[in-house]
Amino acid sequence: METELSRELGIEHAIFGFTPFPAVAAAISRAGGLGVLGAVRYTDPQELARDLDLLDGLADGKPYGLDVVMPAKKVEGVTEADVEAMIPDGHRAFVQELLTRHGVPELAEGEASGWRITGWMEEVARNQLDVAFDHPIKLLANALGSPPADVIERAHAHGVLVAALAGSAEHARRHAAAGIDVVVAQGYEAGGHTGEIGSMVLVPEVVEAVAPLPVLAAGGIGSGEQAAAGLSLGAQGVWLGSLWLTTEEADLHSEALTRKLLAAGSGDTVRSRALTGKPARQLRTAWTDAWDDQAGPGTLPMPLQGLLVAEAVSRIQKYEVGELLGTPVGQIVGRMTSERSVQAVVDDLTRGFERAVTRINRIAGRSAT
Amino acid sequence: METELSRELGIEHAIFGFTPFPAVAAAISRAGGLGVLGAVRYTDPQELARDLDLLDGLADGKPYGLDVVMPAKKVEGVTEADVEAMIPDGHRAFVQELLTRHGVPELAEGEASGWRITGWMEEVARNQLDVAFDHPIKLLANALGSPPADVIERAHAHGVLVAALAGSAEHARRHAAAGIDVVVAQGYEAGGHTGEIGSMVLVPEVVEAVAPLPVLAAGGIGSGEQAAAGLSLGAQGVWLGSLWLTTEEADLHSEALTRKLLAAGSGDTVRSRALTGKPARQLRTAWTDAWDDQAGPGTLPMPLQGLLVAEAVSRIQKYEVGELLGTPVGQIVGRMTSERSVQAVVDDLTRGFERAVTRINRIAGRSAT
Repeated sequence: METELSRELGIEHAIFGFTPFPAVAAAISRAGGLGVLGAVRYTDPQELARDLDLLDGLADGKPYGLDVVMPAKKVEGVTEADVEAMIPDGHRAFVQELLTRHGVPELAEGEASGWRITGWMEEVARNQLDVAFDHPIKLLANALGSPPADVIERAHAHGVLVAALAGSAEHARRHAAAGIDVVVAQGYEAGGHTGEIGSMVLVPEVVEAVAPLPVLAAGGIGSGEQAAAGLSLGAQGVWLGSLWLTTEEADLHSEALTRKLLAAGSGDTVRSRALTGKPARQLRTAWTDAWDDQAGPGTLPMPLQGLLVAEAVSRIQKYEVGELLGTPVGQIVGRMTSERSVQAVVDDLTRGFERAVTRINRIAGRSAT
Repeated sequence: METELSRELGIEHAIFGFTPFPAVAAAISRAGGLGVLGAVRYTDPQELARDLDLLDGLADGKPYGLDVVMPAKKVEGVTEADVEAMIPDGHRAFVQELLTRHGVPELAEGEASGWRITGWMEEVARNQLDVAFDHPIKLLANALGSPPADVIERAHAHGVLVAALAGSAEHARRHAAAGIDVVVAQGYEAGGHTGEIGSMVLVPEVVEAVAPLPVLAAGGIGSGEQAAAGLSLGAQGVWLGSLWLTTEEADLHSEALTRKLLAAGSGDTVRSRALTGKPARQLRTAWTDAWDDQAGPGTLPMPLQGLLVAEAVSRIQKYEVGELLGTPVGQIVGRMTSERSVQAVVDDLTRGFERAVTRINRIAGRSAT
């Protein structure tokens, strides 16, 4: 599974694996793909430095990347306290009532919730970049719009390719104009923040919009047949996030969440504003149902919603409150039915790809060797 | 583009084209695919007989099919008047207000609206079948669930394959258990009634669920690259509906509607209950906005909504009221940018398919001849 982009990056398979776990990222790179570590949860740059050291040690010299969340719009001079003050009391009461109804215990005195608004602020992302450029990363991806021009320059000075996610051809064109090197076309099926255009339609639209820039197909890819489909649509590689969540190397918040993911079907996700205030695909739970219910107060815009629910999400995860327990994940969750090693997943992807190519050649009346 | 199913049907390319227009269906069949005429608008069996004669004459002896709407659940002993009586006055007033606000003229005295609830009732579909089996159809598709057992038997006695649309693996399994021959896996991107699972995820799920039954990939397919993707996912053919709406042979309600389709992008459709009461993808218009607006009365369940809006839709189409004018269409509408002949569309599909196969072989490191 070799494309111009995979050759440029020096990887064996054009498989890009996004994951919040350093051990998973390293295993993807060792297996011949490119592991890309998600940095959003690292509010402390030292912690990121430690995990990048770990990744580096585990990767056996194979290339890897980093994914940051750098908002396209700067929020200047606003503190977390300012944002806190904008949250209506009725919304706080709604969260309290939900947690009480489901018997979710409080965090211990002084215990911080893991996920805060700070992870979405530019200052934090910039501190992360200082750490990142001290490591031999090969790809820097941004999940929220194009990175600022100086960041792109700095990446290029370090020989690092810059990628940005796009949910529409228009977004992709904006990224290309900003000078990025790779567009990740992320379809409606994907986990996390997605637009409404399905991968089948989006990927070729983005390929045409930014040619000759390379495009990765993201959203709905969890098998070699799906990888072949993404590459047929003109992509130079596939970008997978959800599929690694249930690998043996992953360190999910709880066994209960892993079991929920393994049991879920493709129809068990929902595109909801309940987590961040922007539509993000995630497991459908009593939590998303409550926020999406017309009888409730509705969600707040980003970044208010994320700040409002941060502590609640931490409590739900820590105490493994089954009905409320969820995570961002794509429709491909239906294919995640057993815990496997990352290597086994990659082997399965490349074998399925070869099968699909053989089949498509038969359909085309060609014999391929 | 040859599969076991295309060979069984005696067609050159595994391209299945759904269309409400006999001239388009015939042109698809002449071009080497299988034209499938949508029967839902034929409330009068004589009219269907006339158009099947026409199709037959135009098809040059090539095989073609028919698509009926036969509800899975029987509505016994209920007349159109009974259903009319269930519509709340507030909803009628909402329609009136909408039409008045947009200055939509009345139909002339005695002029009937084209689309009625009757097209969705089993009795009508059964009359259509009597007509259909008098013609050399090769495929009978049902858009709403599995056809009744006696219809499947009758089709098989005539040597006709039976297909049914499915938006989930569970629906597909039910169709297979009912004894149908082909499943059309229709993803979220498609025009008309769709589920929420994107084609990239749905198609392989359905292929696995009903193997060894053949599956057609539907939803988001409008190029040869997309056809290659659908076939990579395990389908034995592709099912296209939207793409033919702007062909030269199509007889759309108005030039204004054709112009709207040619101008629309992939983000200009919406999955809305505004047309029938079930979620159906269509052009986003002031009409769908009004029904999807939380300030409005909301839509009624099928079949009430369809009956409620039938006359209004006819008036909007007849008088070409721009802001309200819409039609069921998939996200692929973004690719429909010029009026072309059906033959040109099919040529484009097969050429794009060959290009995609060459490219995927290069990515796989194979030389294909």
